[in-house]
Amino acid sequence: MDVATIIGILLGFFVIVGAIVAGGGAAMFFHIPSLCITIGGMTCATMIHFSLPQLLAIFSIVKKTIITKIPSQTQVIQRMVNFAAINRRDGTLALEPEIGRLNNPFFAKGLQLLVDGQDSESIRDLLDPEIQYLQERHAVGKKILEFMGAAAPAFGMIGTLIGLVQMLRNMSSPDQIGQGMAVALLTTFYGAFAANLVFIPLAGKLGIYSKKESVAMEMILEGICAIAQGDSPTIVRERTQAFVSHGRRREIKATV
Amino acid sequence: MDVATIIGILLGFFVIVGAIVAGGGAAMFFHIPSLCITIGGMTCATMIHFSLPQLLAIFSIVKKTIITKIPSQTQVIQRMVNFAAINRRDGTLALEPEIGRLNNPFFAKGLQLLVDGQDSESIRDLLDPEIQYLQERHAVGKKILEFMGAAAPAFGMIGTLIGLVQMLRNMSSPDQIGQGMAVALLTTFYGAFAANLVFIPLAGKLGIYSKKESVAMEMILEGICAIAQGDSPTIVRERTQAFVSHGRRREIKATV
Amino acid sequence: MDVATIIGILLGFFVIVGAIVAGGGAAMFFHIPSLCITIGGMTCATMIHFSLPQLLAIFSIVKKTIITKIPSQTQVIQRMVNFAAINRRDGTLALEPEIGRLNNPFFAKGLQLLVDGQDSESIRDLLDPEIQYLQERHAVGKKILEFMGAAAPAFGMIGTLIGLVQMLRNMSSPDQIGQGMAVALLTTFYGAFAANLVFIPLAGKLGIYSKKESVAMEMILEGICAIAQGDSPTIVRERTQAFVSHGRRREIKATV
Amino acid sequence: MDVATIIGILLGFFVIVGAIVAGGGAAMFFHIPSLCITIGGMTCATMIHFSLPQLLAIFSIVKKTIITKIPSQTQVIQRMVNFAAINRRDGTLALEPEIGRLNNPFFAKGLQLLVDGQDSESIRDLLDPEIQYLQERHAVGKKILEFMGAAAPAFGMIGTLIGLVQMLRNMSSPDQIGQGMAVALLTTFYGAFAANLVFIPLAGKLGIYSKKESVAMEMILEGICAIAQGDSPTIVRERTQAFVSHGRRREIKATV
Amino acid sequence: MDVATIIGILLGFFVIVGAIVAGGGAAMFFHIPSLCITIGGMTCATMIHFSLPQLLAIFSIVKKTIITKIPSQTQVIQRMVNFAAINRRDGTLALEPEIGRLNNPFFAKGLQLLVDGQDSESIRDLLDPEIQYLQERHAVGKKILEFMGAAAPAFGMIGTLIGLVQMLRNMSSPDQIGQGMAVALLTTFYGAFAANLVFIPLAGKLGIYSKKESVAMEMILEGICAIAQGDSPTIVRERTQAFVSHGRRREIKATV
Repeated sequence: MDVATIIGILLGFFVIVGAIVAGGGAAMFFHIPSLCITIGGMTCATMIHFSLPQLLAIFSIVKKTIITKIPSQTQVIQRMVNFAAINRRDGTLALEPEIGRLNNPFFAKGLQLLVDGQDSESIRDLLDPEIQYLQERHAVGKKILEFMGAAAPAFGMIGTLIGLVQMLRNMSSPDQIGQGMAVALLTTFYGAFAANLVFIPLAGKLGIYSKKESVAMEMILEGICAIAQGDSPTIVRERTQAFVSHGRRREIKATV
Repeated sequence: MDVATIIGILLGFFVIVGAIVAGGGAAMFFHIPSLCITIGGMTCATMIHFSLPQLLAIFSIVKKTIITKIPSQTQVIQRMVNFAAINRRDGTLALEPEIGRLNNPFFAKGLQLLVDGQDSESIRDLLDPEIQYLQERHAVGKKILEFMGAAAPAFGMIGTLIGLVQMLRNMSSPDQIGQGMAVALLTTFYGAFAANLVFIPLAGKLGIYSKKESVAMEMILEGICAIAQGDSPTIVRERTQAFVSHGRRREIKATV
Repeated sequence: MDVATIIGILLGFFVIVGAIVAGGGAAMFFHIPSLCITIGGMTCATMIHFSLPQLLAIFSIVKKTIITKIPSQTQVIQRMVNFAAINRRDGTLALEPEIGRLNNPFFAKGLQLLVDGQDSESIRDLLDPEIQYLQERHAVGKKILEFMGAAAPAFGMIGTLIGLVQMLRNMSSPDQIGQGMAVALLTTFYGAFAANLVFIPLAGKLGIYSKKESVAMEMILEGICAIAQGDSPTIVRERTQAFVSHGRRREIKATV
Repeated sequence: MDVATIIGILLGFFVIVGAIVAGGGAAMFFHIPSLCITIGGMTCATMIHFSLPQLLAIFSIVKKTIITKIPSQTQVIQRMVNFAAINRRDGTLALEPEIGRLNNPFFAKGLQLLVDGQDSESIRDLLDPEIQYLQERHAVGKKILEFMGAAAPAFGMIGTLIGLVQMLRNMSSPDQIGQGMAVALLTTFYGAFAANLVFIPLAGKLGIYSKKESVAMEMILEGICAIAQGDSPTIVRERTQAFVSHGRRREIKATV
Repeated sequence: MDVATIIGILLGFFVIVGAIVAGGGAAMFFHIPSLCITIGGMTCATMIHFSLPQLLAIFSIVKKTIITKIPSQTQVIQRMVNFAAINRRDGTLALEPEIGRLNNPFFAKGLQLLVDGQDSESIRDLLDPEIQYLQERHAVGKKILEFMGAAAPAFGMIGTLIGLVQMLRNMSSPDQIGQGMAVALLTTFYGAFAANLVFIPLAGKLGIYSKKESVAMEMILEGICAIAQGDSPTIVRERTQAFVSHGRRREIKATV
């Protein structure tokens, strides 16, 4: 679970809403028609560019990005070394009870294939597409979030233009001008807020997360394949470590 | 038929027009001279950059993108396997009645060539240029839509500048100022609306659609060529599946 | 002659000037000092970035882009096949009367070299640099037009800032404010108008034109060299067609 | 220690603050809620995009960039040549007293490995990951600073929109309008100031610094490996000079 | 000496200052504190990004770009052919009196090495780094000028924000508002003016100049090396012409 993302969004809302409440007249900042123009327009533009299923998939992708815990590299290497030792000592079937203890479904599936007696080649053929499928999904998700981050301010500006034109119809009292202009500016505020606190940073996070998860999955795949070939724990450790960046490797060496 | 595009554009219009009507004074938002400046200026700039035939082709490209149904990958593979079986069992001529049942003209043309007894090489020579021609047309179409998406707001701003200068000539009554400024802002509104709800998302959709249709056509071409070489249904399935992304392949395996 | 460019510019001027005249007070939009700042500033910046000869060459490049007629691919192939047939039947000298009938100077020069008895290698050595020289000239021209398209709005803004500062000195009557601000906005209008209707679309057109002319010249060069080698009309057609995009090739096959 | 960075930031603050004080009403420019929106919002967005540890690491990276003194190339080459001479004359152990005199920890670690009798290959295996780790850290740091440089003005604009909406609620007296608008503009000022004087230039500096430090470390590594192989001082000088850019090499030749 | 650059800057100043003087109140446009914020802030940001020596080097690089005369390609080839003839006829020493007649220091240095009896290889080893050093210096110079072109408008905007906040403190009389706003806009004017008339075009010019001078130096180096190898004037001409673009080569052929 990526705590920073949740804290960041909550804290960001708290800071902005706090500033609004502290300034007084917070009720004015909640305006349904303005929300409709900004969020509705952005959603429609995204539907035209992409497709409905892709748009809906964004929610599950973001949810998974925030909730799913990527197993740490140290942990994966440690487990792989243990499994290799068990495999050497007691045979592949002795790994079966370990499957239930894994909370990463990809890891569990790989171990299941190993226990089922699949050879290294067919495990790779079955798991490699999963990694590629995940990367494709994440890449599309990142593009959609980036497009939303560009479309939200654009429709915010469109909403402000509508509000300004409506306000300028009758400029009788300065008070009315102020009210109209305040409402007109709300859509720009919504668009800038959604883009800069939600869509743009989430697109960035999804890119970082995607790379991290791919590396973890490739480490797991490499480790499982190594065990399937009957490699010794030492060789399994070396093959999984090849995916670890050089800086991290030192840290892992200290702990594993 | 790409429902999302149509729904997106209609819903987007509905949201924006709804917000305008709800705010009152909707008639003010329909101003012929402002429309002329924004859409006319943009069209002229596009005509200078590209050429008249390219500009006119955009309408048919967009229409085709929205209306044409790309055969699903599952369906193409399923049909290819069937055709390969028929070809093996009853000979190429037995495929003739199938041509009329295909609603994809590229597929029908390919099958016709097969029935006509063309060999694998000459089918490829005849159909490959069609795929490249389509990709070229789509690439130019995407560039034109992107240029329109940049030119529309630019001419919207030019229109607003004209309107502002005209308004500033006589600043006698605040009411007149408001009216003049409202009209001046309309061109910016038109430009932003056209670019963000129509041109930019359509350019994106065209890119996605172009890739999808190319893959479908390449799958069909590969399948037809495989049948023409007398490959077995199993080999035909494998060769057409090579174009399917890894994630999709799993889904197809389940259904085919 | 590229009609679309001329129509586009004329129509664009007509639309914008029409909107100005329809709004009244058209005389106000013609302001010599504002024109000096925008066009003068832009010209000076372009002179600093590039050099005087490059800046002056732009006029002739643009003029040639609009006026010069690129021979159609169909026409080039048709002629090459004819010339190859004449060459085979009556020898190279029989091509001499054809030179005068060609209105493309590059084509005429190539044919002259052929008639003069130059071999394939030396024709290529003499004509290839001409194609490269043209591409270099066009690439520089495109860069200059793009720079102008960026500099014009920038100096428009500089002019508006000057106008605003001058206007803000004395804010006695609202009428004077309006007049001053209207004049100040004119430079921004000039800059945006020149960039979006002239420089940016012309830069795009020059890129498209340059590619088209290069292909035509390469087709001519390839055809002349093939004839110089004594190739048969069929081979000449095949070698010139290699430069035609696949989509176009079908159309040409139908006509040739 | 990079004096230019410190002088630049201090002088920049001095210039801007000086202009504020000279204009009078400096107290007005210090507004806690506005600071919270700009800096708080930017920090939250950075936390969402990156992660908390990465965000915190930025402070130490920037501090190290400003404080750490990269040994000059001339100095490294001079020392390497001396060490090679000592190594040749008195053996590796004679280098031990030199370790304490080095204030660069990477250099000291390399020399320690040399004194410990490690061969060239294992020194490279141990030190190479350190260089890569540093480059990765700096690359992430640069990305974060660049994101902050983009997010700060964005949240400045969000703050200004909030301030404007709050101000426009009641437009009774022109004095109140002025006060409200002044406060609203402060967030934009904070965002532009932080981005343009701190984040964007620091990101650039970090890139330059990272390249410089990498080259210095690679020179040290190459020199130590050469000494470990028992190369002569002349060869050591040549191998370390290979990392020096050609222009600098002339200067070094004059001094070494 | 690049006349276009000097004329461009002088004419640009003349146009802008002329427009200011013509509009009246020119004294208002010269405001020391505003100049300090814009130029001072930009200088500080550049100092943080780059370093003090790099910043100071910009002046000499720009001065050299404007003043230094790059020998024309025709001239270099002509001289090389002459020197090759002299070398063949009278030996290398006969070239000594020519050194004093060359006003290009790189050319003179190369010829001196030739006269000193250095062979082709060592001349290349000594002169090649000079070309690379020059290219590095120019590349850094271009980057600094581009950064200044981006920083100047940014600090202009910061200055305007400061001025606006100070102006908005007391909105008692409309006259004072105008004065304050006029002063506030001055920094934006300074920033836009400096960036668009000086920094951005100079960065472009430096790029063009750097390429031109590199080619000239490489031609000189190639020619000197050819003469050192005792090549005939014809071969020397061919080897130096290899650096000339194809379009230029035709012109040179006509003159040489």
